[in-house]
Amino acid sequence: MSTPIGKTLWAIAEGYIPPTSTGPAPQMTSHETACILNTTNQEAQIAITIYFSDREPAGPYQLTVPAQRTRHVRFNELKDPEPIPKDTDFASVIKSSVPIVVQHTRLDSRQAELALLSTLAYASE
Amino acid sequence: MSTPIGKTLWAIAEGYIPPTSTGPAPQMTSHETACILNTTNQEAQIAITIYFSDREPAGPYQLTVPAQRTRHVRFNELKDPEPIPKDTDFASVIKSSVPIVVQHTRLDSRQAELALLSTLAYASE
Amino acid sequence: MSTPIGKTLWAIAEGYIPPTSTGPAPQMTSHETACILNTTNQEAQIAITIYFSDREPAGPYQLTVPAQRTRHVRFNELKDPEPIPKDTDFASVIKSSVPIVVQHTRLDSRQAELALLSTLAYASE
Amino acid sequence: MSTPIGKTLWAIAEGYIPPTSTGPAPQMTSHETACILNTTNQEAQIAITIYFSDREPAGPYQLTVPAQRTRHVRFNELKDPEPIPKDTDFASVIKSSVPIVVQHTRLDSRQAELALLSTLAYASE
Repeated sequence: MSTPIGKTLWAIAEGYIPPTSTGPAPQMTSHETACILNTTNQEAQIAITIYFSDREPAGPYQLTVPAQRTRHVRFNELKDPEPIPKDTDFASVIKSSVPIVVQHTRLDSRQAELALLSTLAYASE
Repeated sequence: MSTPIGKTLWAIAEGYIPPTSTGPAPQMTSHETACILNTTNQEAQIAITIYFSDREPAGPYQLTVPAQRTRHVRFNELKDPEPIPKDTDFASVIKSSVPIVVQHTRLDSRQAELALLSTLAYASE
Repeated sequence: MSTPIGKTLWAIAEGYIPPTSTGPAPQMTSHETACILNTTNQEAQIAITIYFSDREPAGPYQLTVPAQRTRHVRFNELKDPEPIPKDTDFASVIKSSVPIVVQHTRLDSRQAELALLSTLAYASE
Repeated sequence: MSTPIGKTLWAIAEGYIPPTSTGPAPQMTSHETACILNTTNQEAQIAITIYFSDREPAGPYQLTVPAQRTRHVRFNELKDPEPIPKDTDFASVIKSSVPIVVQHTRLDSRQAELALLSTLAYASE
């Protein structure tokens, strides 16, 4: 069952981290995530670039997903080279050294981590 | 990290702008958007055509997305050549001069801009 | 702006029409729809086949989408050759004489036709 | 209407079964499902592998979908070779002996089986 599946270049055109100014509940409960699956036998070296509407892109943010593992990357935990600003529209491009599958999910932990939405990211050919 | 990603022709088969007749809340809170990502080094010249169930298509609506930028296009802000009627089913085709990625998102600003739904648009081959 | 976009064979693997036994609200408010966009200059002759978990497929249900028009097909309005049973999991295959784009949407009319979910259907290659 | 549609290798990058520790309501109401459609004239022999963030993959879980039938596979009903742990992020790869279509859906049975989200799975080329 180790057939690799996926692509090495993905994009999520919609991203948003709620502002801190709307009270304690939203910041604690909503998580913008890129769910990444690496079915290969090699560690995936991943670089995420964040695009904005009114400034230069940020990143690359470097991270890894071990062989035959999945990882939920929360955008509000990306800190290096800079945190992603809250209350700001962004988009992301995810580049991997090996084929991966990426799904964009927004979680609401108020209801036992139920997702508010989830959609397949766009895979480059 | 400047690998372009995407296609030049996209479609969103479902669109809807709530009517004004249902009170102040829906019109202020719900936003039908096409989230567009342009990872290329050139400005994207974009033309949107709107299709209806019972009349000729409207448009093209012309807009641009700068190089290496994202833009959330709200359909209720498209005014030229004509506003998109409310309370009416529509679909859209998005044509770009350079490769882009398009995600269809319906936002609800009552909860700090949480999305109600989001799905990848259809990319032509 | 008349570049045709889409495919002639699509599938929606998840479908469900709420039962009538749960009271008046769900039956009046929830609509399982296939949003179909026909950007070509010809009428689309469409045949929908419905698949179930425990019986033979139903259909084909015949319908048309005019040239350069969109149509929201509600599954609970498909009556010929037989109504689709409520409270039953189903899937659908949508075949068209010309390229179309199909998006699967579940509407909730309690909130001015806001969608509960929407996802691109699967396009055959 | 028996044109087969689909692929034999699919991935769902996001999965989650609510914990039992949050009370009776979530465990009874939320169902993580893979909706599988088999339009071919042969039974689909399916093997599901589950990937985690911090341990070896589980499976394969073997199941079948009859010819020209659809089946909603609930992940919390997969028991052999081992139950899928609750309150744990996972991802899944679905391999079939014949072409199938897979849609990832999270159901909430509190509202007559309305889906909370639904998105097409990723089809390998």
